[in-house]
Amino acid sequence: MKRGRTVALCGGVGGAKLAYGLSRVLAPEELTIIVNTGDDFEHLGLAISPDIDTVLYTLAERADDTRGWGRADEQWTVMQELARLGGEQWFRLGDRDIALHLLRTQFLRAGKTLTQTTLELARCLGVAHPILPISDDPVRTIVHTDQGDLAFQHYFVRERCVPQAHGYSYAGAQTARLSAQVRTTLQDDGLRGIIVCPSNPYVSIAPMLAVPGVREQLRACRAPVLAVSPIIGGRALKGPAAKMMSEAGAEVSALSVARLYADFIDAMLLDIEDSALAEQARHDDPKLVCEPTVMRTREDRIALARTCLSLLDQLRH
Amino acid sequence: MKRGRTVALCGGVGGAKLAYGLSRVLAPEELTIIVNTGDDFEHLGLAISPDIDTVLYTLAERADDTRGWGRADEQWTVMQELARLGGEQWFRLGDRDIALHLLRTQFLRAGKTLTQTTLELARCLGVAHPILPISDDPVRTIVHTDQGDLAFQHYFVRERCVPQAHGYSYAGAQTARLSAQVRTTLQDDGLRGIIVCPSNPYVSIAPMLAVPGVREQLRACRAPVLAVSPIIGGRALKGPAAKMMSEAGAEVSALSVARLYADFIDAMLLDIEDSALAEQARHDDPKLVCEPTVMRTREDRIALARTCLSLLDQLRH
Repeated sequence: MKRGRTVALCGGVGGAKLAYGLSRVLAPEELTIIVNTGDDFEHLGLAISPDIDTVLYTLAERADDTRGWGRADEQWTVMQELARLGGEQWFRLGDRDIALHLLRTQFLRAGKTLTQTTLELARCLGVAHPILPISDDPVRTIVHTDQGDLAFQHYFVRERCVPQAHGYSYAGAQTARLSAQVRTTLQDDGLRGIIVCPSNPYVSIAPMLAVPGVREQLRACRAPVLAVSPIIGGRALKGPAAKMMSEAGAEVSALSVARLYADFIDAMLLDIEDSALAEQARHDDPKLVCEPTVMRTREDRIALARTCLSLLDQLRH
Repeated sequence: MKRGRTVALCGGVGGAKLAYGLSRVLAPEELTIIVNTGDDFEHLGLAISPDIDTVLYTLAERADDTRGWGRADEQWTVMQELARLGGEQWFRLGDRDIALHLLRTQFLRAGKTLTQTTLELARCLGVAHPILPISDDPVRTIVHTDQGDLAFQHYFVRERCVPQAHGYSYAGAQTARLSAQVRTTLQDDGLRGIIVCPSNPYVSIAPMLAVPGVREQLRACRAPVLAVSPIIGGRALKGPAAKMMSEAGAEVSALSVARLYADFIDAMLLDIEDSALAEQARHDDPKLVCEPTVMRTREDRIALARTCLSLLDQLRH
């Protein structure tokens, strides 16, 4: 039996890990990875797409898993020289990483869309599974903080998430159009299911949901939609999700994430550590499922991918 | 006695070496180096100004004198990675060099002129002597060859000067405006003199002469104008000047260079090796002077600078 396509909505490191797992159990024609562009920015004249790159590098097995960003086997000569010349230092770019940004910037300046550019970069990196930015139009996350409005990378990297965040907006999202490829993918009647990866709900998933049509498509989708919680036992494994949730006045828990997605998910996958929490909540809409979700090894990623696919198939019946 | 300012018109490596010598015997307020931009181009989205960089790196003592271009102590990780990704390889950019191009590109995109950008990069590199591009408007050398018209770097680097050149044009030159700084410098009544450095007459000096006002200013200049021949004993020490001269149907000699500059120079400095040639020619307009001009060491550069300054002072009287 021909299986339908699985769609993964994906942000940073956690999302990329699950996307990696999915890419190892699904053929390129069985998986489409749709990626957040809210973190994208131009720096030193280079077009940088941190979430796309994390997915690209992870799927290409070239990510630095220890550092958690950028390329493995990285060198830093450009940055060192830039430091000597007095250039900006707050956003570190490795030499190999810069090579990719140069290519991306060149493609974009030559008039390719971000989608065409991303597919071309994936090809350059030997990644066969389609990786699609949510939109070819710019969507830029702005963090509203006690120190004023900050562009995402200024908040995240330059200010190290220290300012208190009281809200988020996604500049450009309201007028951004889904790319033809993303629209076709989400409208596909034969989808196996959609997985919202364990990514930051405010700055990885919400920017995608803010693009007109996405939330509507997810709600209307006949195939099951499953979200994987990025919050485990009241903390985020990586990144500022827990701090953000707390500053948003929400309980730091997988249930809070489930509430953010309640209108479009059929089920929420919580970590096994949160079994008691799920037991207490006992709700069926969305359905709460507990399984091991922590991805320390490559095998963990593949196991979680299998868990998600199995859940999607159960939800269909 | 306060000495007037000396102006050096300068292209690639030979010009940069003499500019270095001048910078070691003249204070920043006594020297202005005006540099060719005909070689400039955009590559991989980076704004690259090869002649300006050669002057910058040489004056900052950071040039790779063995290779003859780019930075000393260079690394090549970005290019290696770009090669793996399938990016363009024909124009090699070292990692440290890329840091400078990133800064330049950033400054230009931020709206600074090329003049402001170059002065700022000089400051970053600790170079105190003013280095001025001939114009802030683009001037781009086109080489007309038996293989069609080639942008300069395509001819020079990609095709390694193999195609037969039958002419040159300087796209943009006719509408390019001298920068205010270059105009003021050339119009200064108190100049000590102007030195046309030993640079390629077709692709280093001619693009500057093609900008309206330059040739006229040189002709009208009350201070002496001295050219140093890049051709010694019928050959160029570096680069394609001899091949170009031959393909232009001219005798490959310092005298051919003198003829190209005849309307605006007062004297031509030939290498001591060309004494017999100068003796045969015996002309006084321009006056031909023979002295050692080969710059192998830093001391040679300083010696040639002193020779030029001394000649300028003799020509005044």
